[in-house]
This record gives sequence, C-alpha cells and structure tokens, in this order.
Amino acid sequence: MSDSRYGAFLTFEGIDGSGKSTQSRLLAEALRQEGHDVLLTREPGGSAGAEEIRSLLLHGDPDRWSAETELLLFTAARRDHVERTITPALEAGKIVICDRFVDSTRAYQGITRGDLRSKVDTLHALMIGLEPDLTFLIDINPNIALARASKRVGSEARFENFGIELQATLRAGFLNLAHRARRFRVLAGNRPEAEVHSDVLTYARKFLGHV
Amino acid sequence: MSDSRYGAFLTFEGIDGSGKSTQSRLLAEALRQEGHDVLLTREPGGSAGAEEIRSLLLHGDPDRWSAETELLLFTAARRDHVERTITPALEAGKIVICDRFVDSTRAYQGITRGDLRSKVDTLHALMIGLEPDLTFLIDINPNIALARASKRVGSEARFENFGIELQATLRAGFLNLAHRARRFRVLAGNRPEAEVHSDVLTYARKFLGHV
Repeated sequence: MSDSRYGAFLTFEGIDGSGKSTQSRLLAEALRQEGHDVLLTREPGGSAGAEEIRSLLLHGDPDRWSAETELLLFTAARRDHVERTITPALEAGKIVICDRFVDSTRAYQGITRGDLRSKVDTLHALMIGLEPDLTFLIDINPNIALARASKRVGSEARFENFGIELQATLRAGFLNLAHRARRFRVLAGNRPEAEVHSDVLTYARKFLGHV
Repeated sequence: MSDSRYGAFLTFEGIDGSGKSTQSRLLAEALRQEGHDVLLTREPGGSAGAEEIRSLLLHGDPDRWSAETELLLFTAARRDHVERTITPALEAGKIVICDRFVDSTRAYQGITRGDLRSKVDTLHALMIGLEPDLTFLIDINPNIALARASKRVGSEARFENFGIELQATLRAGFLNLAHRARRFRVLAGNRPEAEVHSDVLTYARKFLGHV
C-alpha cells in the first residue's frame, strides 16, 4: 500500500434514483479526459465470480436465504470483486470508481435487520478490509428520486419493493454513515445532473491533489 | 437452549478413507433401534441451499476462487445447513449426527492456508456459533486409509488430489484439534468396522445418559 503507484478508490452511494450511476460514469469520463487511468465498476457484481454468486441471490424463492446467509454470500461476492477487479487496478495505479460498495450493505442491513449491523462491520474488517478513500453520497428526497426513477424502465419495480418509507429510512442510514467517517462527501441530489457532477469533480480533483 | 426438548449434536471427523461415513450411518441405525429420533446429515451439503452453493465450488476452474472467497462460500453453505436442517431437528429434540462439520474446515485450512486458521474460528463464532456436543475423530494412518479408499469408486481420485503427505498433515491437524477440546473422542480406525462402531456406541450412550 506504500507503493507510490497505488491508485485511489472512489465510491458512490445513495438510494435508488439518486443518480449515482450517472454520476459515477460522468466522473469516470471527466477524469479520463484529464489523462487519468480510470476503472469504472459496480456492485453487486464487478467480476465473473461475483456475478455467479449474485445469480444465486437473485433466482429462486426470495425467502430461501436467511439474512445471515445472504450477508455471507454478499461478502463472498465482494471479496471476489475486490481481489479480481479492484485491488489489481489500484496496484496498477488506477483510479477505481465503484457504484455502490460496503456502505450500501451497511445501510440496507440497518433497515432490514438492524441486529446484523455490527456483524456487517466485523465481517468486512475480517474478510475484506478495504475501505474507500473517498465516498460520494448523493443525498435526495425519496419522493423526488421516485419521480426520476419512474422514467427509467425496471427501476420503478425495485423502488416499489422497498417503498417510500423504507427509502427514507435508508437515506437516513446513509447520512448517519456519512457523519461518522471523514471520507464522505454529501451532495444534494435534487439538482441538475451537470451541477452535481461539477461538485463531484471539484471534490475529486481536490482529493487527487489537483487544484 | 435450556429447552428440555433440545436434542444432541454429534459429529464425525477424519481423513478420507477413515470410515467416518460408515460409522455415522451405523451409529444412526443403532440409536434409532434404541428408540431415538435421529437425523443423519453430512457436509458439504445437507440442505438445498448448501448444495447450490456447493455446486459453485465444485464446477468450473478450481483456481477461480481464492481461499478467502471459498471460506466465505463454505460458511454460507454451513449457515444454511445449520438453519434449515440441524437447528430445527435439535429444537425438535432429535439427535443430529453429521458426517463432517466445522472441524473439517479447521483441519483443511491448517494444511492449505495456515494463515486463515484464526479467520475460520472468528468467522464460525460470528456467523454460525454452533459447536458439536460430541465429536468422534476416526484416527487412521493415511496408508491404511488409502488402501481402503482404493476399493471404492471415486474415492481414490480425491485421495490423489491431496496425496499421502497432505493426508498425514491433515491427520495431525485433526489430532491437534482433538487435544484442545473436551468434546472429542478419538478412535483408532485401523480396526474392524464392528469394533470401532461398538466403541462409538459406548461413548454415545454414555454421553446421552444411558448406562
């Protein structure tokens, strides 16, 4: 990790419809234009093995896995993603931008099975260890996010699975995480895409040592 | 756990060809004949979900999972097996006999990736917790075990994957575990099946409070 070629690990977090996937892509494009070697990846997934594990979670009866088994499977997928995709890129000096990472697991467990929150942290520290260097939390009112997400095919269904109230709790969970770790930058997501991107880029440049 | 109907959890461990699967079956049959409600199960596997996770581990390139990801997947499979099969049976007052359990993971990690040994224990304590009440270790010289296993189709291949030397290290690993926990009963496996079974049954009866 003391290798001067070691890159930077940037993540985006937020509720569905917050615009974080768009912002991940815009930041990757902007940094590439500035000459950086950038890897854009996402969770769940991000490596062949992680995708295979993910398919276990997505198919079949949704109740067939307990919250604990699901957490172990998510952690196995993340371990594979980190080993095969993220760490090699960081060691090659790249800037890795990841759409969702462990903070999503922390926030989701907080709303579904609060008693598992400390296990998420212990398991992550034990088996993965990697934390982002910088995390952008795109914060948005769930009602606005829903209105946006409704315009995209497929997104609405996910939203309805959780519902506005759970998205509101999730939002509070993300903000709570952001207040506890210095690596977070919280951005108001109820603004035009370009405006949010401009703020993200300013923070990223500052972090990377540019003016 | 203070429920008087809570059953007993008995496991069998040992290297390939030690005869533990046969002894598991013989004990289950004997205890059933004595009127006990017995569930005989095994690892890897033992529940539908665990079998699915196991198939991820068995198929494809054997090097595609790291030792850490493999450990997480094994633990996810064990969690499912414990939740869906073992715990419900124990809570119904049954005697659960399991062919291999966490001690196999402990012993195998000791020979393959020694640096993961403490992680196996921490992960088990964090996500599973259940330890057997009584564990039978069928101890046998790997050369004798190999000669036996060679008579069974399919077993030889597994043996060759590990080789005699690794089986010897594995045997030492099991004996080391047995010296550190009071729940172990070590039985010499180089004896006729009926003789080993007789000892197993004596220990089991004593444990279950019979004379």
